[in-house]
Amino acid sequence: MEHNNNNNIILHSHCVEVAMEEVHHVVAPPHKSTFQKLKARLKETFFPDDPLRQFKGQPLKTKFVLGAQYFFPILQWGPNYTFQLFKSDLIAGLTIASLAIPQGISYAKLANLPPIVGLYSSFVPPLVYAVLGSSRDLAVGPVSIASLVLGSMLRQEVSPTTDPLLFLQLAFTSTFFAGLFQASLGILRLGFIIDFLSKAILIGFMAGAAIIVSLQQLKSLLGITHFTKQMGLVPVMTSVFHNVHEWSWQTILMGICFLMLLLLARHISIRKPKLFWVSAGAPLVSVIISTILVFAFKGQNHGISVIGKLQEGINPPSWNMLRFHGSHLGLVIKTGIITGILSLTEGIAVGRTFAALRNYKVDGNKEMMAIGFMNVVGSFTSCYVTTGAFSRSAVNNNAGAKSAVSNVVMSVTVMVTLLFLMPLFQYTPNVVLGAIIVTAVIGLIDIPAACLIWRIDKFDFIVMLTAFFGVIFISVQQGLALAVGLSTFKILLQITRPKTVMLGKIPGTDIYRNLHQYKEAVRVPGFLILSIEAPINFANITYLNERTLRWIEDEEDNKKEYSSLQFVILEMSAVSAIDTSGISLFRDLKAALEKKGIELVLVNPLAEVIEKLKRVDEANEFIPAQNLFLTVGEAVASLSTAMKNQSTIPEGAHTIMPHY
Amino acid sequence: MEHNNNNNIILHSHCVEVAMEEVHHVVAPPHKSTFQKLKARLKETFFPDDPLRQFKGQPLKTKFVLGAQYFFPILQWGPNYTFQLFKSDLIAGLTIASLAIPQGISYAKLANLPPIVGLYSSFVPPLVYAVLGSSRDLAVGPVSIASLVLGSMLRQEVSPTTDPLLFLQLAFTSTFFAGLFQASLGILRLGFIIDFLSKAILIGFMAGAAIIVSLQQLKSLLGITHFTKQMGLVPVMTSVFHNVHEWSWQTILMGICFLMLLLLARHISIRKPKLFWVSAGAPLVSVIISTILVFAFKGQNHGISVIGKLQEGINPPSWNMLRFHGSHLGLVIKTGIITGILSLTEGIAVGRTFAALRNYKVDGNKEMMAIGFMNVVGSFTSCYVTTGAFSRSAVNNNAGAKSAVSNVVMSVTVMVTLLFLMPLFQYTPNVVLGAIIVTAVIGLIDIPAACLIWRIDKFDFIVMLTAFFGVIFISVQQGLALAVGLSTFKILLQITRPKTVMLGKIPGTDIYRNLHQYKEAVRVPGFLILSIEAPINFANITYLNERTLRWIEDEEDNKKEYSSLQFVILEMSAVSAIDTSGISLFRDLKAALEKKGIELVLVNPLAEVIEKLKRVDEANEFIPAQNLFLTVGEAVASLSTAMKNQSTIPEGAHTIMPHY
Repeated sequence: MEHNNNNNIILHSHCVEVAMEEVHHVVAPPHKSTFQKLKARLKETFFPDDPLRQFKGQPLKTKFVLGAQYFFPILQWGPNYTFQLFKSDLIAGLTIASLAIPQGISYAKLANLPPIVGLYSSFVPPLVYAVLGSSRDLAVGPVSIASLVLGSMLRQEVSPTTDPLLFLQLAFTSTFFAGLFQASLGILRLGFIIDFLSKAILIGFMAGAAIIVSLQQLKSLLGITHFTKQMGLVPVMTSVFHNVHEWSWQTILMGICFLMLLLLARHISIRKPKLFWVSAGAPLVSVIISTILVFAFKGQNHGISVIGKLQEGINPPSWNMLRFHGSHLGLVIKTGIITGILSLTEGIAVGRTFAALRNYKVDGNKEMMAIGFMNVVGSFTSCYVTTGAFSRSAVNNNAGAKSAVSNVVMSVTVMVTLLFLMPLFQYTPNVVLGAIIVTAVIGLIDIPAACLIWRIDKFDFIVMLTAFFGVIFISVQQGLALAVGLSTFKILLQITRPKTVMLGKIPGTDIYRNLHQYKEAVRVPGFLILSIEAPINFANITYLNERTLRWIEDEEDNKKEYSSLQFVILEMSAVSAIDTSGISLFRDLKAALEKKGIELVLVNPLAEVIEKLKRVDEANEFIPAQNLFLTVGEAVASLSTAMKNQSTIPEGAHTIMPHY
Repeated sequence: MEHNNNNNIILHSHCVEVAMEEVHHVVAPPHKSTFQKLKARLKETFFPDDPLRQFKGQPLKTKFVLGAQYFFPILQWGPNYTFQLFKSDLIAGLTIASLAIPQGISYAKLANLPPIVGLYSSFVPPLVYAVLGSSRDLAVGPVSIASLVLGSMLRQEVSPTTDPLLFLQLAFTSTFFAGLFQASLGILRLGFIIDFLSKAILIGFMAGAAIIVSLQQLKSLLGITHFTKQMGLVPVMTSVFHNVHEWSWQTILMGICFLMLLLLARHISIRKPKLFWVSAGAPLVSVIISTILVFAFKGQNHGISVIGKLQEGINPPSWNMLRFHGSHLGLVIKTGIITGILSLTEGIAVGRTFAALRNYKVDGNKEMMAIGFMNVVGSFTSCYVTTGAFSRSAVNNNAGAKSAVSNVVMSVTVMVTLLFLMPLFQYTPNVVLGAIIVTAVIGLIDIPAACLIWRIDKFDFIVMLTAFFGVIFISVQQGLALAVGLSTFKILLQITRPKTVMLGKIPGTDIYRNLHQYKEAVRVPGFLILSIEAPINFANITYLNERTLRWIEDEEDNKKEYSSLQFVILEMSAVSAIDTSGISLFRDLKAALEKKGIELVLVNPLAEVIEKLKRVDEANEFIPAQNLFLTVGEAVASLSTAMKNQSTIPEGAHTIMPHY
């Protein structure tokens, strides 16, 4: 290319000179057929982790082994399992079993189910997960939030006290649908749906749920017998103070003592993580002590309600209890989907957290299949919705679990309990179970995280508050839906009102940056350089058109002393996509600018944009090739020369370069 | 800054040298309070056109005048109105009146309303618009799509034949709500909601609506008396062939003749735009000829149905007919909102099209208020939903309209018709009205635009087809909802699966671009340079995390022959926004990379991103300042030096610069 020796232009940067020697052209990406593009797009959408990569170029037998290992991770770690590892897993398994037994009974009561269902749910699902799951730290069992939601949603239509069998049937059917939904998300690789429960939503939601759950415990903590069936803050508090005459001082005293004990244990374990077993063992110790106390003082005769006789024996089959017909089917499916999403979110988050900590990988979609299948099997064997629980997995990890075998140990321990130890729980007071639940859910309220969100992003904070107050005052599912809707609306608003930023040249360089952010940057007279920071599509072309024209009008109003505007440069590095409406924006802008005698210049249109532009504009009609540049620097340098060489402009009327 | 004289580095570009002399720092934008940011954000969201700009710095009196002119544009153009302009407007007004009268009668029938309501609707609303509207070309009156939707939605609950009074009341009430909704969108500056009806949706929807409308005309074109009340393709065709015995050959013959005549007239005007009056006058001519024919041959006795006696006189008041209570309120509000959106979309699009053609400005939100107020007034004066119609405005413009006075002329002509000429329409055959409607809606089917969409964007094409088939086979509102949902889903998918692109250096420059798009670009050994092309938020952090790690793994797998990876550079020019979850992505990535001994480097984080990063990371903990650069070129140059100077790396183990 010819070296441009125009000495009239004062160049302050080597870069500009280099750029002018050779102006680089914007090119379209190599041609791809619609089918190829579709394939690439589908792959990025559904297989971003490229799970088949390891199969490539392997012999058939290896492929088969790898495939089996993919679906049954136990085949991967099983053969290398040693006695050394087992010793660690045995200790961890016994530790989480001591937590799982009282929690299982408590959470089942939270879901309005017979306490024994909570133990059933801590027996079968962990075994299934041990075979299918890929996390080494996940401790499986019922969790507080899913229990709460399951219980409260089903109670809208069926009373657990007047029709316990139907309620149980609906609970198992919901569990089946939850599992089906979870497994489908995994199989269809739609796992990204749970991403829409953002961190802000989860923090607000979990805090709200913790309060709702704690409020429900007022029934057992105060010994009230007539309690509201609603979940909201207002009806529960009304019910509590309406039934003051039912309060039992013996129950309250016992509740306060054990709550203090459990909170103290929790506090110790938080302060000294090495003493994790204090809080892990506290619930079981509380259950044992309180049971002995009640038995010794005949507490059940002094207003302290107890669990009562529990049936011995392991899980009876329950596939004959699933109801796929009748008037409650809609509710059951809805309950299944919501508890499914909630428990999945918890399980996946726990899995990912510990995998990152211990530097191994958890495949989200595979985990969804594992958790889903576990719940389907669970629904056949008298279990309700289970997942990997935050608190229990943390204990598992602290206790030194090395693999899913700790789940097997826990499962066997629960089995032994189910077979032989059930009579021991007959005198366990409900108040202690309430205290165990309150202690467990208090950890869900994360004030520091809420403060951090306030500091980083005010809108996220509002989303968090929406989830929190929505759950407390409206309902769990509506509070969540509101928060998800609000955060999706924010994304759409970002697209509908994309930022347009005026760029200036950073003196002594070829770099053009936001004038507002980089105070040293200066305008180049005759040019208006705008950066568009979003994909251009139907939702924002009207705005972009109006906004760009307003930039130009502002320019014309204010900058009379400068040279008049000759070029509008649109820096397109951030325009990642464009649609048919987007293309028309350029046509409209070009027409509007032509009437003002201004040229439209595009800089660095990305692959998709330049491809579509070229496809419409085969004759280079509205964006000619000489108005396309690779960098703003090259565009300004090249166009300044053109400006200077224009004989129509009177000499000296325009200062071409800024006078810095 | 110290000049770096390290001669080991082979530099091929002056730019790199320049860059290395002085590395430019990423800075955060100047501090703004939350309130200031909120204010700026709200302004961009709701006042992108800055309507108060002209008021700035004006004396109070001028402000008052400008304010009055803002709300009543007639005050702006009225004082300068001349007799010369009036002559043009008179001709244009008479031309559109000749179109408006037969169309008004036809569209009212399409909406299952008495024909005279169509004429009422061409009398009052144009007068209101003349005072409030800012478009000079909009010709106001009832339109086909809104008529169709209004009629079909209300017919779901009330039959226009068995209970015509209630039906009329609901139509006026729907019109009231349509106007209220339109004006609210304008007042609340939420006009961007109509942008969600993208061009692709409108093309598909209008073609579908044209077919639905034409199918409805088979009733009058074939002379069937027992016709289905459903709108879909299947029920209508079933009804048509089920009632073959009702077909009237006289009606069919007349229908075919006038349809041919009208289509011919349309064809002529399309071919020679100067002969626009041929198609503009054809409907009135057809009405006159057919009425005379029927009157002369007593066609009403030969199976040709006629309009029948029409009441004389101008619009009676109808505010006493609005029903804000009762069981149909929900339907009426829904109908109002949907017809309101549809008619607004048409009116705004027409206004913008002609404003762009004739180089004046139409304020979308102001137009919404004008159209909304026009419909509210209309609902008080026996009019149903009106807006600026595509076809009529085109005729208006072609006929030389200079201002809204052409609407006044049309309005007066319609008034004269209402007062004195109504008996003349007694013998007008319905079949001609059907032919007029079919001819009018055929223009809504835009095949070339559909082909263009296919060429530009396959996904938009699918959206278009969804709208088209949804309208034909399901229903107007559900078809639209499906298409809007699908195109919104596409936007969300773009955010959920943002593009990540690997950049390479364009030889001889300092420019880094997409390796796939620019074939000459080359990799820099030791660096992985990725560009993230979307805002980072809760919906995509999981994907971005996985995808980035996969890029790195691919790197480790394939590039063994190159030097090992030392830096991952994330080019952030396209990351326009970030939320709390987004911040955690960097923390997670940094941790994952550290385990592999790779450093994470950010290039050109934009204002919002750097601000939030700094707010969380006050101690420069996870992105230290030395890992922030303004351009990829500077980052690579600076880090290459660092790499070379590291004594821990054995000499010669790494080729620092590529060997091109």
